[in-house]
Amino acid sequence: MTNLIGDSSIDAAAAAIAPHVQRTPTVRSVGLSETLEANITAKLELLQPTGSFKVRGAFNTVLAMSAEERSRGLISMSAGNHALAVAHVARHVGVPATVCMPATAVQFKIDAVRALGANLELVEGDLVARTNELRDELGASYVHPFDHAAVVAGTATIGREIMVDDPDTSVVIVPVGGGGLISGVATGVKSLAPHVRVIGVEPEAADVVSQSRDAGEPISLSGARSIADGLAAPITGQINLDHINTNVDELVRVSEDALHTAWGVVVRQGKFAAEPAAAAGVASVLAGTITLTATDKVCIVLSGGNADFSLLRP
Amino acid sequence: MTNLIGDSSIDAAAAAIAPHVQRTPTVRSVGLSETLEANITAKLELLQPTGSFKVRGAFNTVLAMSAEERSRGLISMSAGNHALAVAHVARHVGVPATVCMPATAVQFKIDAVRALGANLELVEGDLVARTNELRDELGASYVHPFDHAAVVAGTATIGREIMVDDPDTSVVIVPVGGGGLISGVATGVKSLAPHVRVIGVEPEAADVVSQSRDAGEPISLSGARSIADGLAAPITGQINLDHINTNVDELVRVSEDALHTAWGVVVRQGKFAAEPAAAAGVASVLAGTITLTATDKVCIVLSGGNADFSLLRP
Repeated sequence: MTNLIGDSSIDAAAAAIAPHVQRTPTVRSVGLSETLEANITAKLELLQPTGSFKVRGAFNTVLAMSAEERSRGLISMSAGNHALAVAHVARHVGVPATVCMPATAVQFKIDAVRALGANLELVEGDLVARTNELRDELGASYVHPFDHAAVVAGTATIGREIMVDDPDTSVVIVPVGGGGLISGVATGVKSLAPHVRVIGVEPEAADVVSQSRDAGEPISLSGARSIADGLAAPITGQINLDHINTNVDELVRVSEDALHTAWGVVVRQGKFAAEPAAAAGVASVLAGTITLTATDKVCIVLSGGNADFSLLRP
Repeated sequence: MTNLIGDSSIDAAAAAIAPHVQRTPTVRSVGLSETLEANITAKLELLQPTGSFKVRGAFNTVLAMSAEERSRGLISMSAGNHALAVAHVARHVGVPATVCMPATAVQFKIDAVRALGANLELVEGDLVARTNELRDELGASYVHPFDHAAVVAGTATIGREIMVDDPDTSVVIVPVGGGGLISGVATGVKSLAPHVRVIGVEPEAADVVSQSRDAGEPISLSGARSIADGLAAPITGQINLDHINTNVDELVRVSEDALHTAWGVVVRQGKFAAEPAAAAGVASVLAGTITLTATDKVCIVLSGGNADFSLLRP
């Protein structure tokens, strides 16, 4: 079993990334509270540079690299948001970035990654295999989207911030893709408030973390697709599973229909220009997958904000 | 000349409406700061109940009414957001609301007003005349969208909050429709920080406040249309002009094209699901209508959040 990260890793991550990322606010949402009939706040990770939480893990990973490692350039794989974060960090430290994205990626994200100057390869087949191949070929340094202690620690700062800003929070709900966000947020929350209930929400159509947890080891899922494109990861990591097994209270799944409806609620009632992946938490409450009490104070993590609004249902 | 409201009116308004409205956050926006090449925060009035600042003035007006006045029901006119606020307040105090909206109003807003249970009349011709006629007919109590001291005082709480939350703010930019938002915000800002530059932004295509200020008295503008439907008011009020003349440093105008582009920026770079009216401030900076310095700390008021996103340009 991988070692779990300690509080000192989160402290170090917070100090390292602070000059480079947003201290995002947690805001009460009247619109979501009314619609979900619960006391809802939103942690606005969609206000980060590049529109998602991914910069926290990417900066924490790259800032820990030696000058030699960085100089070889960065490489990663992503549905889009991590690619944007890696491209942003690479630009910041002045090295090239190469990212592999599925050929089915949202056009909006493809364009945005190119606009940040990254070398982009759209992959038809096995994204993981092609990324590893290209990493070996280029000798570039891997900035993993989730399977790395630096990502868990960087992302744990979100959980810490939620509990510092709003200590009354009793439930934290987090979207689940490859497991980077949930493993970090849960660990950060529990480091300050072990009593808080942390819930991860995964698309039924792309449930690699649930399947891996059930299997007791990381499995891989080929060709998973979801309206929440940012959550359709083909793999998870052992380190993510270890943190999830220790710090996540519940892991639930939501339908594509629930995600689509919830996306509309986040935009129209919540007034946040989020992408479908950000709506997983709202979907789980709307669909009744999660049961909340009248006294619960619920924080929903909203990440990211790179959407094609022409896909919104009327 | 109408008397200007005093600090005590703002204090009283703040206390009266506090239980009923959001203490909206002012948040730093990386996306808007990068796009506008300035240090930008956003005052998130689109997070208010019904999605706009209008609840502040409407609650302050209705809470000051006698039981008898309220019992006669409420009436008003609106492009939509004030109608939503009046419907919301009427429901809250348990009386009927009647609102007149232009027949050209955004369908989304028409549906939302009906969903709140207000009696809605869509008016083809003179909105002001028809509203006055209906008020006399019903004997209902008018909750004016802007031309009332209670509205200026209620809205002034926004300016106060901006300066309390972010005392370094040096410029505040505010959308201008009938003049309710700008007259209030400017007065609230100046009550705490007379040195802060307050700028109002009006659509060129619907510039009743600029024209009235130039004329030295409220004029009326028939048939004004703008993509920023919430800013296309047919009239302004003397009390609004008086506060604007005293407390607003600049009043500028922006083109429809600039508003449309800015709306896309607020949604895609800012990550706020705002309506076009909320984009007036961004439009003025993007179009170069307002000159900012490198040391300016600029707060843009974002209101409202009731949009039809199918109208967003790709």
